[in-house]
Amino acid sequence: MTSREPRVGERMGVVTLVGGGPGDAGLVTVAGREAIAAADVILTDRLVPQAALAWARPDAEIIDVAKVPGGRSTDQAEINRLLIEHAKEGRDVVRFKGGDSFVFGRGGEELLACADAGIEARVIPGVSSATAVPAIAGIPVTHRGLSQAFTVVSGHVPPSHPDSTVDWDALARAGTTIVVLMGVRTLAAITEALLDGGLDPATPAAVVADGTLPGQQVVRADLAGIAQAASAADVSAPAVTVIGDVAGLGLTP
Amino acid sequence: MTSREPRVGERMGVVTLVGGGPGDAGLVTVAGREAIAAADVILTDRLVPQAALAWARPDAEIIDVAKVPGGRSTDQAEINRLLIEHAKEGRDVVRFKGGDSFVFGRGGEELLACADAGIEARVIPGVSSATAVPAIAGIPVTHRGLSQAFTVVSGHVPPSHPDSTVDWDALARAGTTIVVLMGVRTLAAITEALLDGGLDPATPAAVVADGTLPGQQVVRADLAGIAQAASAADVSAPAVTVIGDVAGLGLTP
Repeated sequence: MTSREPRVGERMGVVTLVGGGPGDAGLVTVAGREAIAAADVILTDRLVPQAALAWARPDAEIIDVAKVPGGRSTDQAEINRLLIEHAKEGRDVVRFKGGDSFVFGRGGEELLACADAGIEARVIPGVSSATAVPAIAGIPVTHRGLSQAFTVVSGHVPPSHPDSTVDWDALARAGTTIVVLMGVRTLAAITEALLDGGLDPATPAAVVADGTLPGQQVVRADLAGIAQAASAADVSAPAVTVIGDVAGLGLTP
Repeated sequence: MTSREPRVGERMGVVTLVGGGPGDAGLVTVAGREAIAAADVILTDRLVPQAALAWARPDAEIIDVAKVPGGRSTDQAEINRLLIEHAKEGRDVVRFKGGDSFVFGRGGEELLACADAGIEARVIPGVSSATAVPAIAGIPVTHRGLSQAFTVVSGHVPPSHPDSTVDWDALARAGTTIVVLMGVRTLAAITEALLDGGLDPATPAAVVADGTLPGQQVVRADLAGIAQAASAADVSAPAVTVIGDVAGLGLTP
């Protein structure tokens, strides 16, 4: 009997949520690498560092549950079902996700689903694109004297959307660096909401696309001009936008 | 001539800022581990995963620049001076820091100092305690339907302090999960500012001390009671405080 074909009920597998970081495989954690190397089954996604899958065992089953925006998608309920099904068959499952599983990664839903099914689950946090992508581009999200706080917000639900739980007016006045993930398509609406809320149009801003990867692209402008500049540069997802004085520091690591 | 004693001017060393993650050595990145293993000199700090220093070469020089709050400190100018001095002597230097170098880690200042001195510097981002410590304690900083944003704020500069750049009134209304780092001593002042700003006293909150380490301690209460609860539990730094509906999810990874 191989580890991939245990008798049902003999031993439940463990589900491990592994954050894969922003794109470069070197930014996976040591523990994440070990979990990938030990897994019987890996549920992987579109934005994981693909090179990290080479660490998997030759006999590991790799299942791509990529969700392409606007295209066909494997919905979260189906992902949860797969996690549980494999674990119940005695397989150790890694759920491998770009960035951090809990920063817009739906890891909380996966943990809840495992708990409901009586499956043991553990979390190996990842390097979040929210801080790492600006860092690699030379933008510290905090900087002594400039910023004692940063806010990470999803652009997936834009300011005018009825499901939005963010008060953009208040956010514009909060004095934090603002980091927008998944905000390429909604950047114009977001900058407009921040300008309406009173944020200075001259506030420095930067959009970093394909951060940490060889094709990394950085577009800089002020808040008033960043959406148009990103559009003119034909920036596409994945991208991280930073709005705040730190975006004007111009460090070159 | 060993790599530790090159002729001055023969070759400049490179400075690498490595984020060490929240405490468990497994949460150092693969690239961070490689940089530590290759370094001639490592400038380390109080909150790094100490076990990760075992990856250093036997002949590497390890310099502890720990800054103990309230006690003696090696100031940042001296740290910058050491980074530059060793690099100018041809040594590859790792600046090893807990969490992420750019999340209240003063990595921006170190990059600027290297740039001013003509020293090549690179950044290997780390797993930030801001997201990882809550995650390991079962608290996702974002969760579908509950939170589309989170704000990470330093408690080192409390709300009433003249140097504070954060508008706590606005932050109280922004609708983001609030994650406070370095806020054990100032937690009462912070919760008071958020309550004054209109945040619901019944908002769930949690303080996680020694997160990801064997001695991890989690204290839960509502916003109105969390400062007293943390004080009653004798919570000490380092600790991460999460304020928002996600703190009430009660996941158990």
